[in-house]
Amino acid sequence: MNPRVIVNCAMSADGKIAGCDRRQTRISTPEDMERVKALRRSVDAIMVGVGTVLADDPHLTVKGRGLDENPVRVVIDSRGRTPDSAQVLDGRARTLIFHGEGCDRQWKDAESFVCGPDRVDLRRMLDILAEKGIATLMVEGGGELIASLFDEDLVDEYNVFVGPMIIGGRSSPTPADGEGREGKDAIRLRFAGMEVLGEGVLLRYLRI
Amino acid sequence: MNPRVIVNCAMSADGKIAGCDRRQTRISTPEDMERVKALRRSVDAIMVGVGTVLADDPHLTVKGRGLDENPVRVVIDSRGRTPDSAQVLDGRARTLIFHGEGCDRQWKDAESFVCGPDRVDLRRMLDILAEKGIATLMVEGGGELIASLFDEDLVDEYNVFVGPMIIGGRSSPTPADGEGREGKDAIRLRFAGMEVLGEGVLLRYLRI
Repeated sequence: MNPRVIVNCAMSADGKIAGCDRRQTRISTPEDMERVKALRRSVDAIMVGVGTVLADDPHLTVKGRGLDENPVRVVIDSRGRTPDSAQVLDGRARTLIFHGEGCDRQWKDAESFVCGPDRVDLRRMLDILAEKGIATLMVEGGGELIASLFDEDLVDEYNVFVGPMIIGGRSSPTPADGEGREGKDAIRLRFAGMEVLGEGVLLRYLRI
Repeated sequence: MNPRVIVNCAMSADGKIAGCDRRQTRISTPEDMERVKALRRSVDAIMVGVGTVLADDPHLTVKGRGLDENPVRVVIDSRGRTPDSAQVLDGRARTLIFHGEGCDRQWKDAESFVCGPDRVDLRRMLDILAEKGIATLMVEGGGELIASLFDEDLVDEYNVFVGPMIIGGRSSPTPADGEGREGKDAIRLRFAGMEVLGEGVLLRYLRI
């Protein structure tokens, strides 16, 4: 059985996850950060796309946890662009990098998997994670990976925190980028509740 | 004194106000539509940018109201692109079109105002509306106009309804488009409350 895919992100009140320069900015409130940390502690793996590695260089580890206690880190990196200096390669947690056939790179501190001819086949990737015993997978971004997961109908749960700010920008990153859909083809979700967390609001949705 | 500027829009749970084809789609729930209608009935004027006129051709009138009872319709149209066939020119309410100096067009069923050299000067536009006795101005979009209003610090109230759907698209319209800001320059708002309206949530913010 596939891992449960839990997307978690934070957007401004006008739907942006980063500034127009694509760099991460603090959208979450302290109350929301506590929730995110608890969610990270509860999952088997945490996934990001390589765009997020390149833009934000997250470490994706849980404070105070050792190598074997941390969630597995997963990077979707079709063309193998993860830099050797990336924090996801800092040895503080197990790291899996999924890439396409055109990439023959190896990384010293990660296990790498050929998974699809060109772009990473996300369904096959989830099969591989399932074989490794991963039952819950948190996805922290970015918008291209999240859009691909929605396009493949692989998102079980979508959590979005809305922060009290306006970023603007017709090209600023959003929770789901990709090509997008016409309105009539929008993916319907089931609204599963909300929670005020400081000056912001967490909205929760489930797959219908 | 300037009119109170109340932005009202509806976005998907990933921050889009329309599909990737830029055409309007129903994001609001019936419960939210009732709220929007009540808001329209309560304001002196309703404003859109010409992009919204061209994409959606809204009539911006209140059902059952006559010419003198309807809110004034305001179109921001720097280059004078509002078509003669637009519903905002249907004679069912007073219509004001603001444009730049480069446009010498007149419209049969609208009053037009030169207001700024190239792009419409939004502060001057508000002065003119104030002179006409307009105290409350609802802004229904699109994302370019809303971004310009935020950039000029002219938004008093920002209401965004979040509907239970994903549209995606790195170029799909969002509540605030324009050039956008770096994260450190994001405009902070004061969270003023929320309301569950069917399967969606209305979020309200005020200028700090």
